[in-house]
Amino acid sequence: MNIVVQGLGEMGASLALILNQQSDNHVIGVDTKDATRKAALKSNIVSEISDNLIDVAGQADIIILATPVSIIKQAMKELSKIILKSNVIITDTGSTKNEIMAFANSELQHVAFIGGHAMAGTHKTGVTYADERLYVGTPYFLIPNQMGQQRIKQLKTVLAPIQAHFTSIDVTAHDDLMAMVSDVPHIVAFALVNAAVKQLGPSENFGQYVAGGFKDTTRIAQSDPKLWTDVLLSNKASVLTNNRALIAELEAFNQALTADDAMNLTKMIHAAQISRQRLLVRRNDD
Amino acid sequence: MNIVVQGLGEMGASLALILNQQSDNHVIGVDTKDATRKAALKSNIVSEISDNLIDVAGQADIIILATPVSIIKQAMKELSKIILKSNVIITDTGSTKNEIMAFANSELQHVAFIGGHAMAGTHKTGVTYADERLYVGTPYFLIPNQMGQQRIKQLKTVLAPIQAHFTSIDVTAHDDLMAMVSDVPHIVAFALVNAAVKQLGPSENFGQYVAGGFKDTTRIAQSDPKLWTDVLLSNKASVLTNNRALIAELEAFNQALTADDAMNLTKMIHAAQISRQRLLVRRNDD
Repeated sequence: MNIVVQGLGEMGASLALILNQQSDNHVIGVDTKDATRKAALKSNIVSEISDNLIDVAGQADIIILATPVSIIKQAMKELSKIILKSNVIITDTGSTKNEIMAFANSELQHVAFIGGHAMAGTHKTGVTYADERLYVGTPYFLIPNQMGQQRIKQLKTVLAPIQAHFTSIDVTAHDDLMAMVSDVPHIVAFALVNAAVKQLGPSENFGQYVAGGFKDTTRIAQSDPKLWTDVLLSNKASVLTNNRALIAELEAFNQALTADDAMNLTKMIHAAQISRQRLLVRRNDD
Repeated sequence: MNIVVQGLGEMGASLALILNQQSDNHVIGVDTKDATRKAALKSNIVSEISDNLIDVAGQADIIILATPVSIIKQAMKELSKIILKSNVIITDTGSTKNEIMAFANSELQHVAFIGGHAMAGTHKTGVTYADERLYVGTPYFLIPNQMGQQRIKQLKTVLAPIQAHFTSIDVTAHDDLMAMVSDVPHIVAFALVNAAVKQLGPSENFGQYVAGGFKDTTRIAQSDPKLWTDVLLSNKASVLTNNRALIAELEAFNQALTADDAMNLTKMIHAAQISRQRLLVRRNDD
């Protein structure tokens, strides 16, 4: 089976690495960066490389778009204009789905498109972080267009070696969930670092006084700026709603503090403590 | 030299343990718990024990108050009413300093008081966690009242065996620093968990879809509610100021999103990324 993977970053390269190890598969890696393509080929992450999706898309049985959302949309537009194998399945790894599925339901409605999103990945970027264990046990959302509905089972079979936990979800529920559990926490990390610099000066000045709490809370502030600009804008409505919900909770703390309301402060902190302790249903980490 | 340490928890017992190893010192441990006192004496953490600070304070050259802030304030009140050695130095280990230094500058102004706060300690509590390496290389703030100013050098000499990095700081600067690097990050963690529950329902429902980012950002939401109610209220003014600074940064993200201002979003995220990367000046962790 010919599998084209566009975008050999951590997510795409990890998929390519695992799928290319299966004897039935021939994985073709597409990336705009020459060094990335060569590194992927040399490490057997892919068996063939190309700098242009359209050159290799016509021979693909599966096309995996693993770039930032804006590039996925562009690729979908290009794919909608060319002749593909009649039984091709196109999927993607974009972390927000409303714009992608809108396009999949209009210009790409004649093709089996199954939107994909795995709750995996770190803040590391690049082909060197390809990891064959990246998807093991992680939730992997699948959102098909009409043509894709009959093909979910087949896509799951192809992706089975990544050992993800596949789950069907509605596009709106997906994007609201992502806003709250991923997008807003990133904004929080960015905002907390920027607020600290405004209040205390350059981070070199206060870094020596920082303990584990600040470090944990801001770890994801090290994420890629262009990627996250793209993510936040592509999920704008849900992000705004959920960020406002967070601000309301922060204001509630300020109100309780201003009123010296120890009972309410303890109540809010206790609620958070209990909810955070009950969060851990999937893994045994903390 | 007679050194009295009140409160034989992790912080106080570690100080006592190190100071009691110096041949010139005789460390007297004060704790309300009988088992704690006996354990400390048996392990040579202290050379003498008492259940009452006032009974042993009169013979002390150094008094170290290593209890929670509310008990420190109570002990200072008791010490202000009794006769102490004329050259005694009183110090403490409280994590917020405005209330303690206000008292040190009024009722205790006739005594050399040097407020102390080490950026050390874990979530462990109790005499069994006495650790002679606890303070090695950690920043240790010293804030004197007027009588204490001439005695800082002497206190540093006494405390030298703990191998901390002693730093003088103004009380307001200290409490603002703590608000930004510790208190507000805790509020953020509490607020983010509570907002997620309001938007998505009980955390058991969405826990399986949560990745490392949300987990890292909310890890300290598991902190003790009563302890943190006390900490936040004892540093109220600084916490309010710095929490408002955070809310302003969050609003800036919402404004840029609403305006589809990708350039500004990237700029804000990039600033956070660079500052977070430059934070790590003290240790080699991430």
